[in-house]
Parts: sequence; C-alpha cells; structure tokens
Amino acid sequence: MRELEERIRRDGVVRDGGVLKVDSFLNHQCDVALFDRMGAEWATLFKGKRVDRILTIESSGIGLACCAARHFGDVPVVFAKKAQSINLDDDLLTTTVYSFTKRREFPVIVSRRFLHQGDHVLLVDDFLANGRAMEGLIELCDKAGATVEGIAIAIEKGFQDGGGRLRRRGYDVRSLAIVTRMDAGTGTVEFA
Amino acid sequence: MRELEERIRRDGVVRDGGVLKVDSFLNHQCDVALFDRMGAEWATLFKGKRVDRILTIESSGIGLACCAARHFGDVPVVFAKKAQSINLDDDLLTTTVYSFTKRREFPVIVSRRFLHQGDHVLLVDDFLANGRAMEGLIELCDKAGATVEGIAIAIEKGFQDGGGRLRRRGYDVRSLAIVTRMDAGTGTVEFA
Repeated sequence: MRELEERIRRDGVVRDGGVLKVDSFLNHQCDVALFDRMGAEWATLFKGKRVDRILTIESSGIGLACCAARHFGDVPVVFAKKAQSINLDDDLLTTTVYSFTKRREFPVIVSRRFLHQGDHVLLVDDFLANGRAMEGLIELCDKAGATVEGIAIAIEKGFQDGGGRLRRRGYDVRSLAIVTRMDAGTGTVEFA
Repeated sequence: MRELEERIRRDGVVRDGGVLKVDSFLNHQCDVALFDRMGAEWATLFKGKRVDRILTIESSGIGLACCAARHFGDVPVVFAKKAQSINLDDDLLTTTVYSFTKRREFPVIVSRRFLHQGDHVLLVDDFLANGRAMEGLIELCDKAGATVEGIAIAIEKGFQDGGGRLRRRGYDVRSLAIVTRMDAGTGTVEFA
C-alpha cells in the first residue's frame, strides 16, 4: 500500500536492533483515517474470503481491527488478552507467546464464548516480525476449531522469518508494507 | 443511550463485588456497529466543544476511541500505555494509577510528542467507577498543558464515586449508561 509506505518513510524512525518506530500514526497515536483506508485495502486483498470474525491481540491491533471491521460487514472484533484479569473467569482458550519487545513470555487468552468451531477468522495486527503473536492466535483458533481465513498485517519486517514461516504453513498473509531493509544510521527504509 | 442500556440488560452479567461483565460486546468482543453509534452519540453530547485529540488508555478504550474519532473529524487518537516498553524511549508524561480490577498500581505513560500545550482533549473510556484511570489521564493532560474538554464514558457505575468526584471538579462527564444499582443474585441492572 503506497500510502502506508510513504507514511513510514516520512514519519517512521529506525533504531538500532531492528526497531522501526511508527508510534506517531500506528501504535501510540493512531491516524484513524489511515486505519480506515488500510481496512478498505485488506477488504480488497481478502475479497471472496468468508470472514465472520476478526481476531487481534492487545493493544496495538485493536484500533486497526475495529476500523477494519467496517469493511468486512461489521463483523465482531475479538482481542486476545495478554494476562488474566479477575473479570475473565470463563472457560478460556490459552497459549503463551514470547515478546521480543517486552523480553518476556506472557499468557494469551480468549474466552471460548467468542471463538467457536466453524468460525472463519481474519487475524489482524500492526507488526509481523518473528511471527510469535500470530502463531499464538493461530493456536487459539486451532483449539477452538475455527478456520484462519487470512492474516492481515500493517507492517511486515521482511528480513525476519515470521511471514515466510506462516506462508510456508499455507496461511494467506497480506502485509500492507513489507520492509526489506532498514538502516538506523541513515534512517532509510526499503520496501519489497 | 437507550440502545446501550438495553444491550447491558440483555447481555451484561452481574457478578458479586460490583462486577458488571460486558465482555460480549464492549471489552473483549467488540460490537463495532454499536461503537460507531456510541461515537455518534458522544459527538451529539459534546457538540460545540473543540476537540482536536482523543485520549484513552489501553486496552478497552482503544476500540471505542478509534470508532468515536470518525465523529469528531478523524482527530488523532492517543492511547496511554500501562507499562514502559523498550520502544518508548522518548520524553514521557507519566503518572501512576491503581487498578481495582488488576489489584495493583501501574505506570501510565504518554509520549510528550502526542499531547501538547494548547491541545483540546476528549477523554474516552469504557468504564467509569472509582475514576482512578480518568484522574490519571487528567494529570497527564495537566502536565502537558492540554485542556480536558470532556470525558466520554460508555458505562458509569453511578454507585461508585468516580463520576461525582470528576463532575464536582468541573469536568463535563457524559456517560452513555449510568448504572445506579445491580444485583448479582437476580441479575438485574437499574439505570439513572
């Protein structure tokens, strides 16, 4: 998606260690008009797929998923939670995901009431790098007996192995911007 | 907002200890068509106010804030973060909030790049009970020199003191549903 690539070039900040900061429009401050156009683009890319539920993971995926849902017929958005709170006392689907950003493992939880056998699910997230979060959501869908129809990503770090691994497993991964190379010294970002 | 009250009556679950579970449409599974109508309602309630930024707090406020932003001219949505991650290395506005749900204090952080002197801010959240989260966001706005134009709440627990305390301080708090009484035994919920 040309608009997203241009926005990353303009407002993204490359840091050492493969960090791309896009917090001015994607995951701290949110440009909801852009989110809406990203949702429209995903709807085009996944046209013809049956999607009756969007699954994301807190927190950065939630805004994107809610804006995208309009373009998929206002299907329910479910966000997986990263820690058990005392209000979540149901029968739960659970797994564990390692976060390289937070440098720790954390439990990921979805209530069985919101992910069912026979559901056709679109996974949505802001970043795809090593793919651990998406693999966690896939595991929750598998446990529920739901079908993962596709994986909608804003920014894929093409130089990390998550996207390749998911595609080799047969998942339909669509990333609106795939970064192939970034340089913290010059601040340049290259796309596929 | 009649629709929200009816939805709470239909799908909300009252638990002991003043817990109202609305995770089937508000804060785990999200009904984005409802969120859109809630945003339209807040836009009516705050009509005439200058709002050039929406501030919420992760995670449950994010979807509501992003859906509401459309009705306020697609203003930027900023969500305060509950813990410092290694990608957030800027000059930060910080405070501490005690969560009764999580039973612990946690730091709340907004980058100074996304909350400025002179901003006119609408605060958005799913619940208002003891008011600690909103007081934290107000403190961040005060530190930034931003003006809190209003506080947009989905569900206020009118039997707790947060809403009253904020209104006595002069804030324009608009809650789409104010629960005055709930009974875990009978499952009934009464509204103001």
